[in-house]
Amino acid sequence: MARIYNFSAGPAVLPEAVLREAAEEMLDYKGTGMSVMEMSHRSKTFEEIIGDAEKTLRELINIPSNYKVLFLQGGASQQFAMIPMNLMKNRVADYINTGQWTKRAIAEAKMYGKVNVIASSEDKTFSYIPDVKHLKISDDADYIYICHNNTIYGTKYNELPETGDKILVADMSSDILSEPVDVSKYGLIHAGVQKNIGPAGVVVVIIREDLITDDVLPGTPTMLRYKIHADNNSLYNTPPAYGIYMCGKVFKWIQNIGGLEAMKKINQEKVAVLYDYLDASSMFKGTVVKKDRSLMNAPFVTGSDELDAKFVKAAKAAGFENLKGHRTVGGMRASIYNAMPIEGVKALVDFMKKFEEENKE
Amino acid sequence: MARIYNFSAGPAVLPEAVLREAAEEMLDYKGTGMSVMEMSHRSKTFEEIIGDAEKTLRELINIPSNYKVLFLQGGASQQFAMIPMNLMKNRVADYINTGQWTKRAIAEAKMYGKVNVIASSEDKTFSYIPDVKHLKISDDADYIYICHNNTIYGTKYNELPETGDKILVADMSSDILSEPVDVSKYGLIHAGVQKNIGPAGVVVVIIREDLITDDVLPGTPTMLRYKIHADNNSLYNTPPAYGIYMCGKVFKWIQNIGGLEAMKKINQEKVAVLYDYLDASSMFKGTVVKKDRSLMNAPFVTGSDELDAKFVKAAKAAGFENLKGHRTVGGMRASIYNAMPIEGVKALVDFMKKFEEENKE
Repeated sequence: MARIYNFSAGPAVLPEAVLREAAEEMLDYKGTGMSVMEMSHRSKTFEEIIGDAEKTLRELINIPSNYKVLFLQGGASQQFAMIPMNLMKNRVADYINTGQWTKRAIAEAKMYGKVNVIASSEDKTFSYIPDVKHLKISDDADYIYICHNNTIYGTKYNELPETGDKILVADMSSDILSEPVDVSKYGLIHAGVQKNIGPAGVVVVIIREDLITDDVLPGTPTMLRYKIHADNNSLYNTPPAYGIYMCGKVFKWIQNIGGLEAMKKINQEKVAVLYDYLDASSMFKGTVVKKDRSLMNAPFVTGSDELDAKFVKAAKAAGFENLKGHRTVGGMRASIYNAMPIEGVKALVDFMKKFEEENKE
Repeated sequence: MARIYNFSAGPAVLPEAVLREAAEEMLDYKGTGMSVMEMSHRSKTFEEIIGDAEKTLRELINIPSNYKVLFLQGGASQQFAMIPMNLMKNRVADYINTGQWTKRAIAEAKMYGKVNVIASSEDKTFSYIPDVKHLKISDDADYIYICHNNTIYGTKYNELPETGDKILVADMSSDILSEPVDVSKYGLIHAGVQKNIGPAGVVVVIIREDLITDDVLPGTPTMLRYKIHADNNSLYNTPPAYGIYMCGKVFKWIQNIGGLEAMKKINQEKVAVLYDYLDASSMFKGTVVKKDRSLMNAPFVTGSDELDAKFVKAAKAAGFENLKGHRTVGGMRASIYNAMPIEGVKALVDFMKKFEEENKE
């Protein structure tokens, strides 16, 4: 069996050790005589699985006790509706537009109230994070919404907007668990797990308890109310049980590495391998403003569509998968999530050097 | 490794052959060098996986070409809202109440319009299916809603309501693929997969194309519109990819058995093993009216709560898991889904006989 280096933006590479454990436990989870896929979600064994997953996540991110952790379905796309339906009491919210995913979040929120786009980086193809020091936050805004790491464009907030006593809501789908987070600065964090945590089909929501109320917009479906899931410890209905089990394994894997400080150090080292080369290369160039570079997603170009295509094809043939940039921006993108080993990034850079050498004018 | 006999109502037993295949492919799906969990949902390989799954399902159920198959998230509980939000043009619908899950569907639909409960079996703890020949279907009803198989109570429609040109909507979560279905009688069929198809976190929707429109209730979230998923072949956002892959394997497993006619025959044989004994036993009794018995779920009682508890405990110790009845009805329940081998039912009946012998007065 030959594992390739998978630079997919998501669903993405998972730790090999975790996949091995899952394969071993597939027919018989710890002597229960059944797969986790076959277990009642009301069983003691599954309650331990979901309880352990939550406990480990709380330890990893140091989640304060006045925050709930929910394991839900529907991905970030469903959160785009769930957030306004639950939080837009005043029917007004401020959004910062940093790419395709905030655009979708904005479009969805507009169905429920007034949306003020208080900053945007659309003028330069979202290659930077807008200035967050001089924001005009609306007096009547129920919350301020950001996408903390922008998968497609490779940008990340290295400084948070000052929102005062207003609620800050963040989509962390593509950088959750890549580095420590001060949860207390947020009212709500959501993250589809399929980039840095586990298999697609689970979305993690970390929400401050005072935001969990029955006071939701009229017509909010039961399944889209945070309160119903919080009151039932994410077991209101059958949860995506196997996905949660996998997430729990990845949480443990990160804990064994040494937690989020250790993870951040590793991620910084990994992305530096690529960016150091990009900054020196005369063929490849990173597209993101330096100070706003993501630890997870690094887009780059040669400047020639033809050469980009040649590179992606050659890289694929050499065992580097999913390096093609998002269809809306072109070029290349290497997603270097937690589970990508540094050997993968080094091998990629070696390959890029060779390609540059062989293709220079 | 000792696999036990798992009579769970769901999540439930899966075919052992399918679990073995999944374990083998966990680190490297067919030479791709990655797990299905790690694959981009936009990759050719995953498009083949979801395409094959749909194709096999269409062949199995013989789904007419004017029906779409969708793989969604949120389970039946989310369908309870999605159905009225998409179909309740006139804000009126008729529901037949056959248990807890129709109750929840009714409660949810009432948020969006007028619900007429045109028949109910609540008077006798849902132990039968109401007369469907003399229904008073409302002239202005947008659809008629039923739960085709009632997991908790062990009842099943062996005859469908005459709905004329009105749309019939059915929840088939607990009996889909247990026997052939004439899809053309329905406007929409939905089924959470965690009972008869695959791991929790996927819901299959089979919907007639003319019901897929942009004309939905105001405030319907994008993710709750059938049209957005139909237009994008269930890939509007990242789908629960691994679950869909597992479903595809189970579809193939049923096809290899000989399809739904063969499956029905096997299921009839299996449930007869249990009911033949129940009908003859002087200790255990089935609770369902004979003509309305489900092929999948068989609830039974001894008449004594104490003896019920003793039986469940002894059965568990002997390797028969999840025989306790639902908390709302008590007693016992054996869920005998497609993947339960007949040996499991025979072993259970042998155990019941022994228990009866040892515990008779």
